[in-house]
Amino acid sequence: MPSMILPALAALALPAPQADDADLRVAQLRDAALEDDYAYAITEAITTELGPRLAGTAEEARARKWAVTTLTRMGFKNVRDEPFPLKTWVRGVERAMVVGENSQPLVLTALGNSGATPAAGLTGEVVFFPTLDDLKDAPDGSLAGKIAFVSHAMTRTQDGSQYGYYGAVRRQGPAIAAAKGAAAILIRSVGTDSHRMPHAGSTVFPEGTAPIPAAALAVPDADQLERLVGRGAPVRVALTLTPRIVGTQNSGNVVAEVPGRDPAAGIVVVACHLDSWDLGTGAIDDASGCGIVAAAAKRIMDAGRPRRTIRVLWAGSEEVGVFGGKAYFDAHKGDNHVLAAESDFGADRIWRLDTNFAPANKPLADRLAAALAPLGISAGRDPAGGGADVSALVSAGVAGVDLQQDGTRYFDLHHTPDDTLDKVDPAQMRQNVAAWTAMLAVVADAPEAISATK
Amino acid sequence: MPSMILPALAALALPAPQADDADLRVAQLRDAALEDDYAYAITEAITTELGPRLAGTAEEARARKWAVTTLTRMGFKNVRDEPFPLKTWVRGVERAMVVGENSQPLVLTALGNSGATPAAGLTGEVVFFPTLDDLKDAPDGSLAGKIAFVSHAMTRTQDGSQYGYYGAVRRQGPAIAAAKGAAAILIRSVGTDSHRMPHAGSTVFPEGTAPIPAAALAVPDADQLERLVGRGAPVRVALTLTPRIVGTQNSGNVVAEVPGRDPAAGIVVVACHLDSWDLGTGAIDDASGCGIVAAAAKRIMDAGRPRRTIRVLWAGSEEVGVFGGKAYFDAHKGDNHVLAAESDFGADRIWRLDTNFAPANKPLADRLAAALAPLGISAGRDPAGGGADVSALVSAGVAGVDLQQDGTRYFDLHHTPDDTLDKVDPAQMRQNVAAWTAMLAVVADAPEAISATK
Repeated sequence: MPSMILPALAALALPAPQADDADLRVAQLRDAALEDDYAYAITEAITTELGPRLAGTAEEARARKWAVTTLTRMGFKNVRDEPFPLKTWVRGVERAMVVGENSQPLVLTALGNSGATPAAGLTGEVVFFPTLDDLKDAPDGSLAGKIAFVSHAMTRTQDGSQYGYYGAVRRQGPAIAAAKGAAAILIRSVGTDSHRMPHAGSTVFPEGTAPIPAAALAVPDADQLERLVGRGAPVRVALTLTPRIVGTQNSGNVVAEVPGRDPAAGIVVVACHLDSWDLGTGAIDDASGCGIVAAAAKRIMDAGRPRRTIRVLWAGSEEVGVFGGKAYFDAHKGDNHVLAAESDFGADRIWRLDTNFAPANKPLADRLAAALAPLGISAGRDPAGGGADVSALVSAGVAGVDLQQDGTRYFDLHHTPDDTLDKVDPAQMRQNVAAWTAMLAVVADAPEAISATK
Repeated sequence: MPSMILPALAALALPAPQADDADLRVAQLRDAALEDDYAYAITEAITTELGPRLAGTAEEARARKWAVTTLTRMGFKNVRDEPFPLKTWVRGVERAMVVGENSQPLVLTALGNSGATPAAGLTGEVVFFPTLDDLKDAPDGSLAGKIAFVSHAMTRTQDGSQYGYYGAVRRQGPAIAAAKGAAAILIRSVGTDSHRMPHAGSTVFPEGTAPIPAAALAVPDADQLERLVGRGAPVRVALTLTPRIVGTQNSGNVVAEVPGRDPAAGIVVVACHLDSWDLGTGAIDDASGCGIVAAAAKRIMDAGRPRRTIRVLWAGSEEVGVFGGKAYFDAHKGDNHVLAAESDFGADRIWRLDTNFAPANKPLADRLAAALAPLGISAGRDPAGGGADVSALVSAGVAGVDLQQDGTRYFDLHHTPDDTLDKVDPAQMRQNVAAWTAMLAVVADAPEAISATK
């Protein structure tokens, strides 16, 4: 496992490294990328010309077509759309009103895979659960005809690590409420903002559990509903949600390559996802990631053929269950991947490097850390997971690199209507491109074999 | 006109003022109000129990009833609802889509008094005008069948002074576009945020001009539409807006009093407005103002009967054209008002005092400035206007006091769905209550006559 203090120890224990030609070349590519305009231009075009790109829809298909054209024009080789079938869920009407003496509307959005109410809606009494554990503790059948309301609040961290724990309310809460007989469930959005912006996102109903209507309230609306419940009298909500499954449609992954000089040296895959939730234009999630990885790969391509092939993966259907990543793995698990990385956490500056290299790759890890340090990036101690769309590869033993972005404001915007181009800071985005360019320059031309820790 | 430097000059030119009993009492009331909880409790109740309170609707009527009950319970006298008729406009469906190869939804909201599209919507080519002057310059008839888009952008100031100039796009733009034959008009929201939050607000169609559909795009959507127009190809938008006039309904003003010891000394009126736009819960606009003025008046009442009557005016129908202020003036212009003030700019801290006192009231102005200085409030040089609902009084010669609030973030939230309780900072709100309490303590008990400059 890499250590935060490894570079310092190395500097003490070893002769001062010589700035050889390879190091100089990496530094030059990195510093030139601090002037990058490709990443922002790609992000601008995806968000402006394509807009929302919900998995399995005509909008996602249009985005793939645009992507093939764009990546081809940029000079990448072997550009192709690799389609796969997707059971496609789409949003319908979404409306909620507190009824009775405090009647007022609430702002919410259906969770992906939510069931539908009758077209005319349903009305039920709200049963409040401060946390997911409180919902789990509710007796079976106690929620019959009721609307469960789980208000577990996520707080802000730089590494976004609360999403795992608090995201469980969204991922698991609806199925738990359904099993207890609830007519519907409302959750506090899994987000850190205080705007009237509900945070979409998928939930999962296991086989055999009929989906119930499930929606996320904007954070101020969750606050409001808590206050109303706190007044003591029963609170009833009229809820209309009419999402539906529109059958099996095509989704797909777009793949493009910078062919390497040495086919035996293996493939470095750099990923993002092209699909987005439908409420915003998917700027930080994840047009910016597609811009960053494509811009970095193009910079390496334009600087001369690298030793290893760099494969750019713009995945489809990430948001609705990482189906693109799964399809890529199924189609390409036999390819000679040696390293995988993904940019899917916005476009704010990268602050930490995590890897999962084998001990024999310590010199590679050191060169990578040295190349990134001038960008304000230090080596972390978490084993790299690679990111959602390449996690299957990393789980299968491919080395991973995580260029960890600052997520302080990411969950203010994540999956909301507010995920739009203006949230991308071009200066921070350039630092990302420089880091990805430096990383690719190091790993694609590394003379040694690359392997993951066991 | 008061001067920022008057207090300093006064200190130089005159003997140091003695902290007499009256000054001490003002200071004690002021400092006690820094612990105020009434204002926040009122604001919390209005926003939570009542929610949106659009002028002329059942929700506004419910709010007036609640207000009469609440102000009576607080101990005010002569509490009453003074109804007046209002031609009532209500929102309908609002939906916009860019059509064609960049098809995507846009977030917008109808402006008050907007006309309606056909129920099935209308589609038109967008004609872009960077500023209102550009729209004014468009030849007559040149917009026939088109959708005008005016994207004049407001920027942030502490005193909110840009609202006057940039607000003209909203107030006048639709009538100008209608006169030139436009099928509809879209404006950039008059706001300083970058959220997917359209800013509502009234527009005006003069007699004889048929209202056209008129809506405000959220700021990111105005940016997006500018980018699409900037690509050069014609941009078409499908627009559905179905607001309507629901006839003449009752609106009304709620009035409450702290009776004074000396009826001949006149009335000090402190105002806010109880109605709100329908998208948010009207927390900063203007439940907080109602909380602040009622809390301050109650603190004076509880400290013993003041010399002058303090009249609390919670006006109706401010948002849709200051109809409550007009109705109050018509009903009460014969009353012996000596001073008027309004809190209607959020709940952030007060930073400046403006008055319009006659020169003979310089000692009063000095005492007022001295009472407010410990709260970080300095004397400004603008003649006080009193605020929308009391502006008719001030125009008619009643003295006005403006306790200017910090508006730096006000137009991020103004008239949006995001105007909710969480935007009120209790600490800054207490500073407001302290300032209003100190102001009332000075003016309600001032031994001298109070009059406005001519």
